Amino acid sequence: MAKQKKQPRPKAEVPKGFRDYFGAEVAERDAMLARIAEVYHRYGFDALESSAVETLDALGKYLPDVDRPHAGVFAWQEDDDAWVALRYDLTAPLARVYAQHRNDLPTPYRRYSMGPVWRNEKPGPGRFRQFYQCDADTVGTATVAADAEICAMLADTLEAVGIARGDYIVRINNRKVLNGVMEVAGILDPADPDKYAHERGIVLRAIDKLDRLGPEGVHALLGKGRKDESGDFTEGAGLSDDQAKTVMAFVGANSEIDSRLKEQAKIARDVSPDYADQLDYAWMTNDSWLRYVLSLQDTQGGQIRNANTLVYLADIVRETAIGREGVSELSQIAELLDAQGYGPDRIVIDPSVVRGLGYYTGPVFEAELTFEILDEKGRPRQFGSVAGGGRYDDLVKRFTGQEVPATGISIGVDRLLAALREKGRIGNTAQGPVLVTVMDRDRMADYQAMATELRNAGIRAEVYLGNPKNFGNQLKYADKRNCPLAIIEGSDERDRGVVLVKDLVLGKHLAAEITSNEEWKEQPAQQEVLRVDLATVISTYIGETETNLDGQPG
Amino acid sequence: MAKQKKQPRPKAEVPKGFRDYFGAEVAERDAMLARIAEVYHRYGFDALESSAVETLDALGKYLPDVDRPHAGVFAWQEDDDAWVALRYDLTAPLARVYAQHRNDLPTPYRRYSMGPVWRNEKPGPGRFRQFYQCDADTVGTATVAADAEICAMLADTLEAVGIARGDYIVRINNRKVLNGVMEVAGILDPADPDKYAHERGIVLRAIDKLDRLGPEGVHALLGKGRKDESGDFTEGAGLSDDQAKTVMAFVGANSEIDSRLKEQAKIARDVSPDYADQLDYAWMTNDSWLRYVLSLQDTQGGQIRNANTLVYLADIVRETAIGREGVSELSQIAELLDAQGYGPDRIVIDPSVVRGLGYYTGPVFEAELTFEILDEKGRPRQFGSVAGGGRYDDLVKRFTGQEVPATGISIGVDRLLAALREKGRIGNTAQGPVLVTVMDRDRMADYQAMATELRNAGIRAEVYLGNPKNFGNQLKYADKRNCPLAIIEGSDERDRGVVLVKDLVLGKHLAAEITSNEEWKEQPAQQEVLRVDLATVISTYIGETETNLDGQPG
Repeated sequence: MAKQKKQPRPKAEVPKGFRDYFGAEVAERDAMLARIAEVYHRYGFDALESSAVETLDALGKYLPDVDRPHAGVFAWQEDDDAWVALRYDLTAPLARVYAQHRNDLPTPYRRYSMGPVWRNEKPGPGRFRQFYQCDADTVGTATVAADAEICAMLADTLEAVGIARGDYIVRINNRKVLNGVMEVAGILDPADPDKYAHERGIVLRAIDKLDRLGPEGVHALLGKGRKDESGDFTEGAGLSDDQAKTVMAFVGANSEIDSRLKEQAKIARDVSPDYADQLDYAWMTNDSWLRYVLSLQDTQGGQIRNANTLVYLADIVRETAIGREGVSELSQIAELLDAQGYGPDRIVIDPSVVRGLGYYTGPVFEAELTFEILDEKGRPRQFGSVAGGGRYDDLVKRFTGQEVPATGISIGVDRLLAALREKGRIGNTAQGPVLVTVMDRDRMADYQAMATELRNAGIRAEVYLGNPKNFGNQLKYADKRNCPLAIIEGSDERDRGVVLVKDLVLGKHLAAEITSNEEWKEQPAQQEVLRVDLATVISTYIGETETNLDGQPG
Repeated sequence: MAKQKKQPRPKAEVPKGFRDYFGAEVAERDAMLARIAEVYHRYGFDALESSAVETLDALGKYLPDVDRPHAGVFAWQEDDDAWVALRYDLTAPLARVYAQHRNDLPTPYRRYSMGPVWRNEKPGPGRFRQFYQCDADTVGTATVAADAEICAMLADTLEAVGIARGDYIVRINNRKVLNGVMEVAGILDPADPDKYAHERGIVLRAIDKLDRLGPEGVHALLGKGRKDESGDFTEGAGLSDDQAKTVMAFVGANSEIDSRLKEQAKIARDVSPDYADQLDYAWMTNDSWLRYVLSLQDTQGGQIRNANTLVYLADIVRETAIGREGVSELSQIAELLDAQGYGPDRIVIDPSVVRGLGYYTGPVFEAELTFEILDEKGRPRQFGSVAGGGRYDDLVKRFTGQEVPATGISIGVDRLLAALREKGRIGNTAQGPVLVTVMDRDRMADYQAMATELRNAGIRAEVYLGNPKNFGNQLKYADKRNCPLAIIEGSDERDRGVVLVKDLVLGKHLAAEITSNEEWKEQPAQQEVLRVDLATVISTYIGETETNLDGQPG
């Protein structure tokens, strides 16, 4: 016989940095996104699903990871030589969509988008090259009311999916204030905005890493540069020590205020354990910081904190027009949010927020989860950021030449799902279907009819379609599928017009306790039901234990 | 002043063959997919979302359009020179997923997937290069009960999304029967299965075009080839006239049976208008076809039709083992479906169904919508196919070397949505949010607070965030957004503790009738409401006209 040519088998592997999502993972995400869409919709935002593929030109180069091919996007050349690429976020495509369809869209245009984005980054553990984003943006208005609205909506969204108030904080900053700081530090010249752009990029990315590197690490990156643990050297912005100090004062505003607060709190405690006495002392000594500390114990404390942060920032950037404008915008945002009942227990001004992306021009936001989790080494740390965004007034202008102000937020869907899992809000084992077992393979039609009856009664049900020869395998399958019940109808039951209903959950409990085979047969996890009553009986039973699509008890 | 270098602006255009989906289009699709997921879930299928990017190797070459680069997929080379590509369907990735994770997955594995797929095809009107599919597959079992289950589920799914029984038909055929026909026609040699593979491919694709080309067109493609209207010549399979006739007899089985039926029906009518007389005549003359025609008037008619089709097919392929096996499988499927109550009014055997994809090995299915629509030239035609699938026993084997039988269905999401739109099931204009207008831009915080109050009462609401200077623009915006109500609070209303609520729907009606400005001011579409009662009053009002996310009246 002629030997057939052997083709090498393809490897059954997903490409590096990509992954698959199974069962409850998909259902849980869908359920979470549906809840988010509900909030967005209530705020007047309309859905948009843009093409996953864009021209490379339209996407622009805004990713922080600029060292990768095509600036970090997956791109390829079309037959007509045009370059196209997978979208790396949902914001750049929105700018293209708005520019393309602006005559048909309302202005302002509020839209939300949910879907996968792709980044041509170096894959690593937990770092995937395809992930979900969930964005909301308002295009075509310059008012900071739009920024405030986005922040309020973000807070509502987090609560709607199950993050309790107190477990999250939305932080707001303003790139204009940062630009003021850059001007004071001498690396931004209003007369020549392109000068020092490279240095400012490094400063921006350095500040964005504050969480990870700490103040010393950031300071090093502002100066000559920094060698990381692996020995790799990252080039710094080359700022002088004075310049770097100005930037660090800005970045450290909140910790500075924090430490002043702690100091004053100590003074207050030293004066007296009694609040009224402390307050008297503060007024007597005319110590505004102490009064501030004490006011934190009031419900209004947070607002005063925001006000103090603004005063502190205004002081740093007082000589620059752009800086003053930024502080004024932040102050308006805080006021608007306050009027809507979103106090600084939910939304706070924080100068350490800068966001890594290059296209932001005004307010920037970040939602952080404040509860602690254990890191891979078992040490407690804050969960961290789950969403970020800001104002990007120039993104549409790239296409149209006209100013089209815009602002928006992007939720990291996988991070937020991980948070909900941490909090036990999702991740309960989803319940499998009722399994109709096959005792006689020639009677498949009867078993299928049973499953149909159950489904018509709204019950999730399936017939075992593997090889039915070994009944033990059917029960193993039921176990793997997490089936609550198995239906059994052999020829004996058939003749008597009954079926056996086996409670697999109870059965598992009992199996742990019962050892002899005789006992097993008599155990109560199995009951006989009239065939004609099948759907009714199971309905009642399942009704009590039914779970939702997303694996949550109904 | 130094002239800045001008960079050419990027074009605000989606790449050719791609598109964006707006507002209700997205919401309607989400709602439809959620309903489909519910049916799939009830049948015991679990969700799977595989990576959009696969290795080119893993995808294989199964698309009918083999003349395009990379066989019709979008592919690019990774940094490590490996080729990856966007998935072109959800079946090839499933085979990879199952091969990769088979030790962790139950067997059989029932899964559903929904999402975009990409094809590097020549774009054309209504022909997009990114589109949605919605699949359900059962992997790891050879029993035709799995095929029958998929067909029953497909029928349930169509009804669940709003296609009435009678408006669709699920057609089933079997590639094994077709192989039997090929063997009879002399273009399949069981001893050398690779011989004539090229010819069989052409035959397959020709039959798949029966709808579009008619029997003559298909016949031409079986022979020397065919010149289309544009003058392009498509190469034929080179079959002799006798060979082609055998294939055509198979393809035309249903129309052959149809014409025999019509003939006999005429005879019956000629005999007598009375059914009993007709039946007597049929028995008297021993005319089995006439008895068959008459039986169609009974509820059991369809089954007899399926039985007749099977006998007809068995006759064509009686000399081939593979053909007989195929007919036997079809007969089992029909029997199983019948036991579950899915008669041929919903699911019918039809030899003209072959499906274009190369990987099918057994039963193939197609769901067709039978109601008429008008084509672009205003002529009535049947809506046509919205789903297709079949058994593909070799797809996983590519990876593992072991046989892993599988079967499944794919719904063309955009086609099905278009059908629902035709039927008026979706596409009602979605209602916009309640618009809080801005009379005084310094009081933005108050207006935002109103919107917050409304949202907290569950009402979709937004503040106008465009330039508030021209009030007419605010109303134009409300009109474009399809807002049901506008809230107006100027300084006068503010002082009196009231707001004006303007009914924009009623207003539009009245505006068509009222001409004078005075009348307009007094018209009933506007009413004064106490500010403190705002949310309560609007709640009651909106409660009566509320619409769902998908634009359907609630």
